Amino acid sequence: MALIVQKYGGTSVGDTDRILNVAKKVKALYDKGNQLVVVVSARGGVTNELVARAKTLNAEPDQREMDMLLAVGEQETIALTAIALHSLGMPAVSRTGGQAGILTDPAHTKARIMDISGGDIAAQVKAGKVVIVAGFQGVNAHGEVTTLGRGGSDLTAIALAYAVKADECQIFTDVDGIYSADPRIVPAARKINEISYEELLEMAASGSKVMQPRSVEFAQKFNVQFEVRSSFNDNPGTLVKAEAPSMEDIVVSGVAVDKNQTKITVSELPDKPGMAAQIFERLAQSGVIVDMIIQNVGRGGKANLSFTVNRDDRKKAEGTMNALFKELGGGKLDPSYDVVKLSVVGVGMRSHSGVAAKFFSTLASNAVNILMISTSEIKIAVAITPEDADKAANAVHAAFGLNAK
Amino acid sequence: MALIVQKYGGTSVGDTDRILNVAKKVKALYDKGNQLVVVVSARGGVTNELVARAKTLNAEPDQREMDMLLAVGEQETIALTAIALHSLGMPAVSRTGGQAGILTDPAHTKARIMDISGGDIAAQVKAGKVVIVAGFQGVNAHGEVTTLGRGGSDLTAIALAYAVKADECQIFTDVDGIYSADPRIVPAARKINEISYEELLEMAASGSKVMQPRSVEFAQKFNVQFEVRSSFNDNPGTLVKAEAPSMEDIVVSGVAVDKNQTKITVSELPDKPGMAAQIFERLAQSGVIVDMIIQNVGRGGKANLSFTVNRDDRKKAEGTMNALFKELGGGKLDPSYDVVKLSVVGVGMRSHSGVAAKFFSTLASNAVNILMISTSEIKIAVAITPEDADKAANAVHAAFGLNAK
Repeated sequence: MALIVQKYGGTSVGDTDRILNVAKKVKALYDKGNQLVVVVSARGGVTNELVARAKTLNAEPDQREMDMLLAVGEQETIALTAIALHSLGMPAVSRTGGQAGILTDPAHTKARIMDISGGDIAAQVKAGKVVIVAGFQGVNAHGEVTTLGRGGSDLTAIALAYAVKADECQIFTDVDGIYSADPRIVPAARKINEISYEELLEMAASGSKVMQPRSVEFAQKFNVQFEVRSSFNDNPGTLVKAEAPSMEDIVVSGVAVDKNQTKITVSELPDKPGMAAQIFERLAQSGVIVDMIIQNVGRGGKANLSFTVNRDDRKKAEGTMNALFKELGGGKLDPSYDVVKLSVVGVGMRSHSGVAAKFFSTLASNAVNILMISTSEIKIAVAITPEDADKAANAVHAAFGLNAK
Repeated sequence: MALIVQKYGGTSVGDTDRILNVAKKVKALYDKGNQLVVVVSARGGVTNELVARAKTLNAEPDQREMDMLLAVGEQETIALTAIALHSLGMPAVSRTGGQAGILTDPAHTKARIMDISGGDIAAQVKAGKVVIVAGFQGVNAHGEVTTLGRGGSDLTAIALAYAVKADECQIFTDVDGIYSADPRIVPAARKINEISYEELLEMAASGSKVMQPRSVEFAQKFNVQFEVRSSFNDNPGTLVKAEAPSMEDIVVSGVAVDKNQTKITVSELPDKPGMAAQIFERLAQSGVIVDMIIQNVGRGGKANLSFTVNRDDRKKAEGTMNALFKELGGGKLDPSYDVVKLSVVGVGMRSHSGVAAKFFSTLASNAVNILMISTSEIKIAVAITPEDADKAANAVHAAFGLNAK
């Protein structure tokens, strides 16, 4: 017998048929003697509908009211899921985020969890009930409804697993787990059986979309082991856990591709100390997140700097730079262009040399031009042209022995 | 300057255009220096959709979970209404039933209000904000979401008007107010300017559908004067208040028609004491509500009893009677048939004689056969055949001088 926290996303509870399917999966585990706490998201599409309705009324709706509005999505699903379980003869009861004791800071639409008591969940579970909890939401110290932002339901599940000292935490999604690369780009990608928090964080930061970094960070901080798996079949998924010695045998765990970057180049800057700091400070003030950076001192003492930003931030970044050039009395923008970031990630890099050499030689032998490079302890990333992206990803995936056998 | 509580029903907030329309009405009053608390229902149709979804999963869904589910309807509307007000530059904040301090008993789906503190509504209003409150819902002593049953949003508004000591309470609906008769049956019906709680209660019990009796009873008990008016125009509505001496000048305020009754006749009952009591006790146990009653002692010492019930309860009432006949060793059912109840209501009846005489002579001169009669201090009702209903209603409405001039 185990205490299991499960999380089902919007696709898994998209309509009443799917909700009934979730209820059947829950019942199967319960009938084997397990105790269950089930976190559910809003039905797929509901959150977008609600946002659209609000934006019809007000292009920039108040964030407190958006939280009041969006929280109804999960509240509907918890009630329907409990009702579905009852129809299978199961004891079940629903709890909103507030009722589950999820206390957050006051930052509406992107609240952070301050404390999680679990409310009466432990008592209900002990009394034999399956407790259905609304993901993505909490309350602040004034009892106001808050929401946790993107990936909030995963965070609810992981935080609850910690609070109730669950034996297992299962994140159900519409894919079989974490893959060694995006299968739409690298057909030979395979499911990873085990991955460390740190690797998954690097993958998420490198463009892999399965999990939001904040949920993984929370899991890492409190050492909550969890499994990412599909709600549409019974295949085992990917276990996400603390780094284990055995993981080092695998030098590279995955290849990540981020097709959403633009390279911006600033040239003819006065070559004075602190120039780069001023640029990045100004971009930060404008809310532009900078990813990769290269700096050269160019001809005639003029500095030259390239960086990548999210494609949506291109105009904002360029505007910020032009305003700065006026203040500095110098500098100009070269034409910006879209790039793709290709990353290899693995804790094994710490103990294995030669990863960079194999990475770059693979790219060279495939005639892929490297535009920028950035590295961390367990990651090497390059910026390349969009035309080279799929070819490069497949070649690198094969070179590091990641292809499915 | 006045503190005004308004309530807008599901039709009035049916889509974002209508919500914006409500927001404009609120702003117009606010701009004149008034303070406002606005109670809203779920968007029209939403509650039925949610019920349908739940019934897909479970024909008899758990009532606690139904309350959790249905409460989302109003929670969506309060947020959207606040967002609409913000778009007009208005300060506004939403409150769920629980946040508005509406404490109920634990009877899910038909909870009764135990206490209403108003939460921080008074403070918010004082700070210049329009407070938008979810109708129809509260919380019980354990913090569980409850709903108040049919007409619950009207009740929320009237109870809040009492709690915050409002100067005015306005119930907005899709009709111009309370009419002297249903205009679909009596085209000459006119809007009543003032009506007493008691008369409106008799009208509601007699088939008028504008207000549920429980809201009117609450208003009467705590003497909360309110106005029923249309959200689609600016016409003054009907003021509902305590009986005033001037009201007695109007002998009959309205004519009500209830087309939803069935007459059941029990004959050949053993003529023993307590027979009628047994019959009505048994019907009450079966949850059948009996309206009009006639008892005769028939031929040969056998008693004979007729009563009317809601048409939906016909089968249940007949089944209950047949079961009782077996125990009593006697009694049989005559064929049941549908009837219409026609009522005239007015506090003026207390001080004016001749109302019954005029009522019955009007029916006689129109060749309407009276099947049953029941009376209260301020009401006379007759059961007639469905064929006679419209003719009789129009004739009586004219006879008592109620026709629009």
